[in-house]
This record gives sequence, structure tokens and C-alpha cells, in this order.
Amino acid sequence: MIDPIVLKGFRDSLPKEEIPKKNIERKLENVFEKFGFVPIDTPVLEYESVLLGKGGGETDKQIFHFEDNGGRKVAMRFDLTVPFARFLALHHAELPIPFKRYHIAKAWRGENPQKGRYREFIQCDFDIVGADSAEADFEILSLMYASFNSLDIRNVTFHVANRALFNDFLATVGIEDKSIEVLRAVDKLRKIGKDEVRKILLDITGDEEKSNLIISYITSGEGKDFIATLDSIVALIGRETENSERMRKIYSYLKENGIESFYVYDPSITRGLDYYTGIVYETFLNDFEAIGSVCSGGRYNNLASLYTKEVLPGVGASIGLDRLLAALTELNSPLVKDSNSANVVVFYKKGEEEKALKTVFELRMKGLRTDLYLLPDKKAKAQYEYAEKLSIPFALSFADGNYMVKNLKTRESVETNSLLRVVELCQ
Amino acid sequence: MIDPIVLKGFRDSLPKEEIPKKNIERKLENVFEKFGFVPIDTPVLEYESVLLGKGGGETDKQIFHFEDNGGRKVAMRFDLTVPFARFLALHHAELPIPFKRYHIAKAWRGENPQKGRYREFIQCDFDIVGADSAEADFEILSLMYASFNSLDIRNVTFHVANRALFNDFLATVGIEDKSIEVLRAVDKLRKIGKDEVRKILLDITGDEEKSNLIISYITSGEGKDFIATLDSIVALIGRETENSERMRKIYSYLKENGIESFYVYDPSITRGLDYYTGIVYETFLNDFEAIGSVCSGGRYNNLASLYTKEVLPGVGASIGLDRLLAALTELNSPLVKDSNSANVVVFYKKGEEEKALKTVFELRMKGLRTDLYLLPDKKAKAQYEYAEKLSIPFALSFADGNYMVKNLKTRESVETNSLLRVVELCQ
Repeated sequence: MIDPIVLKGFRDSLPKEEIPKKNIERKLENVFEKFGFVPIDTPVLEYESVLLGKGGGETDKQIFHFEDNGGRKVAMRFDLTVPFARFLALHHAELPIPFKRYHIAKAWRGENPQKGRYREFIQCDFDIVGADSAEADFEILSLMYASFNSLDIRNVTFHVANRALFNDFLATVGIEDKSIEVLRAVDKLRKIGKDEVRKILLDITGDEEKSNLIISYITSGEGKDFIATLDSIVALIGRETENSERMRKIYSYLKENGIESFYVYDPSITRGLDYYTGIVYETFLNDFEAIGSVCSGGRYNNLASLYTKEVLPGVGASIGLDRLLAALTELNSPLVKDSNSANVVVFYKKGEEEKALKTVFELRMKGLRTDLYLLPDKKAKAQYEYAEKLSIPFALSFADGNYMVKNLKTRESVETNSLLRVVELCQ
Repeated sequence: MIDPIVLKGFRDSLPKEEIPKKNIERKLENVFEKFGFVPIDTPVLEYESVLLGKGGGETDKQIFHFEDNGGRKVAMRFDLTVPFARFLALHHAELPIPFKRYHIAKAWRGENPQKGRYREFIQCDFDIVGADSAEADFEILSLMYASFNSLDIRNVTFHVANRALFNDFLATVGIEDKSIEVLRAVDKLRKIGKDEVRKILLDITGDEEKSNLIISYITSGEGKDFIATLDSIVALIGRETENSERMRKIYSYLKENGIESFYVYDPSITRGLDYYTGIVYETFLNDFEAIGSVCSGGRYNNLASLYTKEVLPGVGASIGLDRLLAALTELNSPLVKDSNSANVVVFYKKGEEEKALKTVFELRMKGLRTDLYLLPDKKAKAQYEYAEKLSIPFALSFADGNYMVKNLKTRESVETNSLLRVVELCQ
């Protein structure tokens, strides 16, 4: 006998998780399509050199990589961004440009599993490539809004900032050469607090005034609305820049479409990753901020430059579906708790097989999600347990040539001889 | 610069393939749900010992396996059946039984790539576990019918046989001890023809009369309907058996529900795999038989026995989605050729940004799949090429405060000031 275990950091998805996950994916896909985004897919395995590029370093140890039977060094993708850059470099000539794609798929990292973090996880990415404009930035921001809206998540805040505008500021202060280290320090604000960040900044800049200015910058959103924050930043820089103007334009689009209240300008958002070059954002559920950002991204104007000389500016975002599902479960969302596998389950006794199969066949033809309980020998207790495990709300059985429809919650029954009435009752 | 190539035997899926693939998956999922089947997922990586079991042999060399950073011997799944058996053994106590699940996911085999065969492929499996009855067998057969029906594939034939009934026959002939070899030989009938199979059978049985009897059995469906074939088989065995009676019952259910014309009894269908114990089937597209079976499976009553003592009889089928998609493309199915990313694309000029974004926002709110072309500087030619690449049927632009809707096929335009009219026109 072989022990039926799964690997450390991996897990099975049982129907009670997988049904809501599928519902979420489908709702998101519908929104992406409504925005004219198209799906793509890439291989799970790629050449290690393609995925790691010049990178290496920390990622290196965390990815699943091996030599295949043909002696090639291969690796499993650790995100959907790098394969997308490779995809763009290979196919841009035949793609519609601007290219708006979405990709919902698994990725793998060999990091040590922690609560809520797994070695296998689902990413949901959407990007626009080939347009560097406030309008393209707005398309992504409004798609983020529409995505959460489609999941009935209205208590959400999008924290927006601009990496290029921050660089304008660093240039003013005269430390643009240390921007990467500064960005990484600032990115820790939410985790370690203002005072700790100030210490790190002092180490980096060796200058108390400059450190304090950076702290002023990243906390300039506190208690202020979007435009007031932008005004403070512009004051710190000393002038409007192309980047501050783009942020004003984006805000005017948000306002024009009545969704501006969902967005705050949060200058502490920098996103740790090197490749962002413009707007950046993170997304927090107001009822569950502690779970962290559930949708993050930004503008990257050189992503595919590892693989091609073609200039392909992009802007996009990524939803961590596992984290989002964990949050929705915690928040008791109807999307999770009301999910079920069918509207009705049909119970039959020995001898009623033909009638049961025909009834089920016809109900399905009429579009009703109909389950058939296939063990006619079992007692009522087993039948109800089955329906309960699948959260099926109605049961149908046969009585004197009629259909008996039972509401499994209220335990009320209705008898009818009409299948159409059954469909009506079970919807 | 890194060469943006993919591994041999792997491929990217571009929107023109991925859009129809998603459509197919969604239609299938809708049908599965209508039948009360629930989705599950399992990890892509498992312990090698869990996936290979006592098997090994040929599969061994074909799977992607390696040692992970923790020194575990792991492998990528090569089908969805083995992980499902492992899943059942691990979770059966908390699952609803009978358990009806579907699983659409990738699997990997390192075999040498041939035309239409890749090292990464998508399987679509559906099974019922925990019910060994004609009714459960019929549920799967009718779900196969409903699946193809949902894809508008009506010119399809399900070739059905019964492994247990074949064993009844082999027992009558007195060669039940050689059943596995005989089954494998018979499985080749379609590929190598009757005479070659006869030769192999002679080698196995060493008896000309027995070989001829087997040939009679496997060709007993030629020119006969379902019941006549079954009658011939019963005549060869010399009596009705439990298994022939089950096949008669299944046929009566097919007939009762008016779908019997899609099923033929084809005694040459055996399915090479060891684990089948009852009904088996393959599915052929009448317009494209050469592509081979697009949906196969059968009853297996001991699948999870490698991992648990719990008796979990199952019946199920598997659709090879890549092969099906290739066939639909070849057959010029509307599902492939009429797929598009949006109903309408909005074109705007410099200065019309606000109006364009607002129009797009409102059209999407009204449920219309609306793309926005984000390069206002480009000429009409580039705009139309964009729409053409995405097969978008309508374009909207602005004229004197009105909306101008252009049918991109007929080149006819309609001017209107009503957004609702735009929605109407573009649907």
C-alpha cells in the first residue's frame, strides 16, 4: 500500500474550495472579456536561462528546476510576468498592438511554507502592452475596480503611487543614484513602521535631512485626499513634472467615471521589484487589511528588453487568487458560503430507475443543475448527508406519480405533476 | 539578449487558440455542473512513488521527474487519473459519496513530440466514484452525449463495449488467464487490421480455433445494431451473463431518453489499460475519424486500491482537449472561427480621451464586451488591422457629438446619439 500523501507546501483543492475558486475565476474572466482583454497561455516548463535571465540571486534557490531527460536545464515558472515578457518578445509581430491579455494560471516557488503561503499558487494577471499613456493606466485601474465589483467586493481601497514621480523627487533631493535601495527601504513602511525606515534611510543616505525629506514624502498622504497628497508631493519636488501631470489626468478620469472614492494616493507604495517605471498600486480589503495586498502591479516600460530590442511599454496588475479566496472565506462572503454543486438532487427507490433517469435528463435539458443520488438502497439519513455536504438546496423524489420537491432548509414539501413547476421551485 | 524560445514539445497558446479553448472549457464545465459534478484540483507535483506506484515500466521514462531542493523524489503528473485515485484514498471520508467530480487541467509526458502530440497537454476528466450500477454507467454515457452536444458536435458516435463481458467470453473459450495479452492485441484492430491481429492472437493462444473465435467476437458488431451485436456476443458465450444484462439495461436507458442512435456496440473496443473492469468506450467524430478517439474511458472498480483498502468503484471518461480543439479547427467549427475578443472596439482621436473613456466605461457597465484602441495617433489602417486581428465585428467612433457604429464586415455605418442603441447594434 502506498501512502496517499501530498508534498509539503502543496495541497489538494476539495469541492468546497474549488467551487468558489472556479466561480471567482469565471467572474474575473467575464470582466476581462468585457474590457476586451484576451486570454493566453504559456508552458509551465521553460528553459531555466529564459526564466532566470541575468536575475538569479534569491529567486534562484526558490524555483523548481532540473535537468530533463534530454539534458536541458529547465524550470517551472515562478510567476506569469517573466513568461509573458518572453511570449511578447517571441510573438509581438503577430499580436494585435496594443496587446491586452489576461492569464490565470499556476506558478511555483520552493519557499518555506507559511500560513496561507504555498509552493503552488494561482496568479491572475492582466496587462496592456504597447501604450504608454494615462488612458492605458486608467484602463488597468478601472479594470481593477470592475474586477472587485464583479465579486461583490465594494469595501476595497486601491493605493496608488508613481515610481517615476518618486524618482523626480529623489533627483530633486540629489539621491537618484540610490533609488533602488531607497525604494526597498520605503517598501517596508507598512511592516516595520516609520522610525525603523528612517534608520535604514539614514544608513543609505548618510544624511539626516534627506532621510527626513523622504519620510515627509512617503507620509505626505496621511489624512489627505488624492489631489491634496499630489499637491504636497509637487511642493516637495518644487514643480509639476510630466509624472505629476499624468497622475492628475488619471485622477480626473477616475472622477469623471464616478469611481474616485475607491482610490487613495499613497506615496509609501513603491513595490519592491526593480522593473516598475511609472504608476504602481496595491489593493487592500478594508475589512481585512491584515491579509495584505490582494492585487498589485504598475507600469513597466522595459519588461521584454531582456529578450528583444522591440520597445514594449506595459502596465498591468496581478491578483493573488489564493490570498483573495482565503480573505473571502474569512469574511464569510456569499461567493464562498452559498456556493453549491446543483439546485436539486433526485432521490429514487429500487424500481424507479427509469423514471428517475428520465426526470433527471429532462430537468438538465431545461437548464436546471440536477444531481442524481445513485444509491437507491441507502436510508434517508445518508441521502440528506449527501445533499448537505454539497449544499444542495432542494431534493426531488417520486410520490404517487407526482414529483415531491422538498426545500432542505425549511423541510417544506410541494407536490406537483409538472416538471416546469419543479424547475421553478428549485431555482 | 536571451533567445525567447520555448522547449521542444511545448508551445504558447495565442489568443486565436486560447479564446476557443476557454469557450470549450466553459461550455463543458457548464454541462458538468448541470449534471451535479463538482470540480477538484490536485498538485502538479507529487511524490514520484505516489504517481508511479508499482507501475514503472514505459511510463517511467516518459515522465518529468527530479529531486527537489529538499531531496524528495518528485514528478509532474502524467494524467489526472492517478492523482485522482490518490485524492480519493486521502479524502474519501469527507467527500460526498457517490462522488462525481470533474477536473480540467494540464498533464505532462516526455514522449517524442509528433504531429498533434505535445509534452504538455490538457485533460478533461469526469468520473463517478462509489456506485457500481447501470445507472451510474448511463450517467457518464449521457454526460458524454451532453458534452459534445454543448459544443454543437452532433455528428459523433460513441463506441461502447464491456471488458467484463469480454472476460466472460474468454472464460467460455478457456483463455481467461491470457486476457491482458489478448486485450492488448485486440486494441490494435483499428490500427493494424484483422489479419495482423489474428496472427498475434495465434501467437498468444497457440490455437487457431480460439483465435478465430476471438476475431468473431470482436467483429460481431459489423453491420449490426446495438442489440443485435449484443445478441451475437451472447450467442458466442452461450448464455446471458450479469454483464450482458447490464449492457441491455444501459441500452434501454439510452433508448428511453432518445439518444440511442449516437451509440454503437463495438466489441473491438477494449482500451489498452489494465484497470478497466466493466463498460469501456471511445468517441469518434464522424467527419474526422482519423484523428482518433476524442473521449475515452470506462469502469474501473479497483482504481484506488494502490492507496487504500476502501472499495471505491468508479466509472468515468476523459476528453483530450488539445485533440478536440485540433479537430474543431480542422472542421471549421463556428466555435473556433467565430470566436472574438469583444463586440466593439472604440476608436478616438487626441482630445477625445475623456469622452472615449466614459463611453467605454458605460458600454461595459451595460454588459457589452468593449475594447478601447489606445493609440489615437495611429492611422485608420492600423486601427482596422487591430480589429481584424481580434475579429472584432464593430467599431465605434465619435462624430459631431454622436456615436458612429461601423459594421467592419459590411462597412456600413449607423449614427446615433443613444448608447442603448449602440449596445443593440453591436450585439
